[in-house]
Amino acid sequence: MDATTPSKSALIVHAHPEPGSFSTSQMRAAAEELRRSGHSVRVVDLYADGWAPVLDRHEFGPVEGHFKPQAEQRKAVREGTLPVEVRAHLDAVLDADLLVLSFPLWWFSVPAILKGWVDRVFAMGAVFGGDHGVFDRGALRGKRAMVLVTTGGTAESFARGGSFGAMDDFLYHIRRGMLEFVGYEVLPPVVTYGPAHMTDADRLAALDAVRESFATLGGARAAAPAAV
Amino acid sequence: MDATTPSKSALIVHAHPEPGSFSTSQMRAAAEELRRSGHSVRVVDLYADGWAPVLDRHEFGPVEGHFKPQAEQRKAVREGTLPVEVRAHLDAVLDADLLVLSFPLWWFSVPAILKGWVDRVFAMGAVFGGDHGVFDRGALRGKRAMVLVTTGGTAESFARGGSFGAMDDFLYHIRRGMLEFVGYEVLPPVVTYGPAHMTDADRLAALDAVRESFATLGGARAAAPAAV
Repeated sequence: MDATTPSKSALIVHAHPEPGSFSTSQMRAAAEELRRSGHSVRVVDLYADGWAPVLDRHEFGPVEGHFKPQAEQRKAVREGTLPVEVRAHLDAVLDADLLVLSFPLWWFSVPAILKGWVDRVFAMGAVFGGDHGVFDRGALRGKRAMVLVTTGGTAESFARGGSFGAMDDFLYHIRRGMLEFVGYEVLPPVVTYGPAHMTDADRLAALDAVRESFATLGGARAAAPAAV
Repeated sequence: MDATTPSKSALIVHAHPEPGSFSTSQMRAAAEELRRSGHSVRVVDLYADGWAPVLDRHEFGPVEGHFKPQAEQRKAVREGTLPVEVRAHLDAVLDADLLVLSFPLWWFSVPAILKGWVDRVFAMGAVFGGDHGVFDRGALRGKRAMVLVTTGGTAESFARGGSFGAMDDFLYHIRRGMLEFVGYEVLPPVVTYGPAHMTDADRLAALDAVRESFATLGGARAAAPAAV
């Protein structure tokens, strides 16, 4: 990377309870490739950090009357009273050019610990609402996001017309409802189907495929001449 | 109800942090109507109960080697070693003819505390997999389920072609991926759009509409002659 190309930064938020899982290996492979292509990478490991996912009134100062989560978030953003750990994660989100949500598909969605990261960190008034809007007026417009997923089911079961249903339809609530909603341009998902049922050789090949997806993420930028 | 009509049982799993919220009032109205139409009703209030949503290895006995959540669930079901609170919730699910998931739509999905109820309670080997299959071979086939939801956005924004996107598309991962997956017949969702922006009178009318949805849930059965 030459000096005129600013380093891109990536935040990977990872949610798998097993450090030795394929999901965690996949996340590490992605992080390596992002670093290799010139990103500064920060990894948040929600299980390792013991992230508390439940958004409730104890998150905030004394609440007068009924507890309305979004109103309290907006007030806390405005008054600078978000919990320290929430503010730190929020700042990491705001700082990153690319957000990667890395998780095993549990019940065709994110694990609860990751859902609760979104519930608490994507605070109203900070990433949408207040001075911001939603979608192309969300606070994270101009940035990119994607999901990095493992499944139990096969690729065939997640094909359109497959026995489960189409992966894109399951991921819709994440793409549209979490990522595009706050302004992100959402990149195609990177999915490894059924690594638990693979041979070791196939798992290594699957990791290589993940690396390739992330190596080419920068597209034209990564392929550009390196220096003047 | 005559003596030849067995009582139907309903389990409502509720996830809102504010007892005074419209969401909680809506849940109570639904419970009342279900009781009125002859159901025995059990309400699980996840926030009030302090439900712990994070599925991790501490849920299980000593795990040898890598922690694989579904394998551990299946083993715990087989060996009778599920945590007491998980087993109790699982038994409530297995006992109920109707499951109602009651929640405010947070990030176009369930709050983390409810996602973690599904993650922990819908154990492999008990509600799918093992001796059971999935979908029409899931353990909960023959039972019905539905969602009871509040939103921040308007009905127009959730219409097909609306500014957010179609409600059915957002709920797809819940309907297909959580409820149909384990065998439930899924009833149409009951949704109140934007109660926070309503007048008190409109909120009361919205509660009446919810009551009506639940009063007619029994369909032909409730309307049948009461006795021979």
